[in-house]
Amino acid sequence: MREKVTVVKVGGAIVENEAQLSQLLKDFSAIPGKKILVHGGGRRATQVASSLGIESKMINGRRITDSDMLQVVTMVYGGLVNKNVVARLQAIGVNALGLTGADMNVIRAHRRPVVKLSEEQSIDYGFVGDVDEVNGALLTMLLEKDIIPVMAPLTHDGQGNILNTNADTMASETAKAMASIYDVTLIYSFEKKGVLSNPDDEDSVIPSITRSDFERYKADGTISGGMLPKIGNALAAVEAGVSQVIITLATAIDGHHGTIIK
Amino acid sequence: MREKVTVVKVGGAIVENEAQLSQLLKDFSAIPGKKILVHGGGRRATQVASSLGIESKMINGRRITDSDMLQVVTMVYGGLVNKNVVARLQAIGVNALGLTGADMNVIRAHRRPVVKLSEEQSIDYGFVGDVDEVNGALLTMLLEKDIIPVMAPLTHDGQGNILNTNADTMASETAKAMASIYDVTLIYSFEKKGVLSNPDDEDSVIPSITRSDFERYKADGTISGGMLPKIGNALAAVEAGVSQVIITLATAIDGHHGTIIK
Repeated sequence: MREKVTVVKVGGAIVENEAQLSQLLKDFSAIPGKKILVHGGGRRATQVASSLGIESKMINGRRITDSDMLQVVTMVYGGLVNKNVVARLQAIGVNALGLTGADMNVIRAHRRPVVKLSEEQSIDYGFVGDVDEVNGALLTMLLEKDIIPVMAPLTHDGQGNILNTNADTMASETAKAMASIYDVTLIYSFEKKGVLSNPDDEDSVIPSITRSDFERYKADGTISGGMLPKIGNALAAVEAGVSQVIITLATAIDGHHGTIIK
Repeated sequence: MREKVTVVKVGGAIVENEAQLSQLLKDFSAIPGKKILVHGGGRRATQVASSLGIESKMINGRRITDSDMLQVVTMVYGGLVNKNVVARLQAIGVNALGLTGADMNVIRAHRRPVVKLSEEQSIDYGFVGDVDEVNGALLTMLLEKDIIPVMAPLTHDGQGNILNTNADTMASETAKAMASIYDVTLIYSFEKKGVLSNPDDEDSVIPSITRSDFERYKADGTISGGMLPKIGNALAAVEAGVSQVIITLATAIDGHHGTIIK
């Protein structure tokens, strides 16, 4: 039987709320065995950018990252949020190590090409990275030494550039890379109890979703908006060997609540 | 014969200048054997603080770090500067890992107590850390795996707080911690060719300084200001077993130029 690894992704809304973050980190520290934390920080980046007079531009929920915004996300994700989480985990006995993809070359990415919409229109996401490779052997080495990686949503292109990378994707790519070695559970924690069948009913959690369920829910409009890429990432992880993906409330990351993607 | 380790401290003025930083990193990558880079970033922190409407207050060249300023230095040192340096080193084949003292608990510190000047006056440096312990065994483990630590001038108190820590001190404490295992050279690189006997003559480099030389130069005023704590740190490192400390130009970190402190 393979050893278990839990990869927990925690969103920006939680890392920016003192009380919720404390609880999340306590719950994270209570997860038995090897584990990895991946955090967001988008709201904080938007605040800091705004204080610096830099406007945040989003397309389909993704941040356009020009060179000024790259500096902001590098500061906020790699510095402010990451180091705060690391110091707090150390305080509760978790031997955390903050990482971006550049550190030890743990996640290599390439800059997303400009998307051509028509002859006249195109989208340039700027310094946004799509993951090429996660160094699972290196993460394994850390886990074997009881070091807990805390990953900021930043990668690098190997040519000296930091790239802004979606935290959900970081988490699923990391989980996939560990799946050849470990029995991996990926937990997407956020502000809802799970994937809801009725957005107005917080208790309408769908207990489990398979690929065919997903296609059906997508077609009939039950699942839409920001949940689509999240579940897409989750299904891709399961199909690549991750044992299970759970989408759940940030205060319920014990693996017994929420929506199981399988 | 013990294996060599070189600890290079690079100041804020160099890390903020694109051309100088590129050259410094190239020179650093050319240093044979095991090595550690410690960087500053104070000028950039001052700029970012100013853009955020936060005033920088300095006493005796040390930054007063209230909670707003702590957020700024955590962003700038731990995020912006550190990750930029790490990504650039990766691009030239150096397997860099960015660290603060909180990461893997590598440098533990305590918050500097309030300094009482008189009944009425006192100095509270705020979230400033004085180093208690550097985990030399952990740094050794990284070096043995050909991982190059890149250290931001931030430590932690073990209770969840990041602390702003002088980069020269980080470098000398790190060098001291490695001295029981390795033959350590500590290089303080900055914008001058070395310790000058005449501040108006850039070529008046004092080739070597011992403790007794230092006392003499201090008494006759040859050495003053910001060089006093730097040389004090250097002598403390030598007295704690570091083989040699060199104070030199950022573009001359090959160990053959500048002032040797011995």
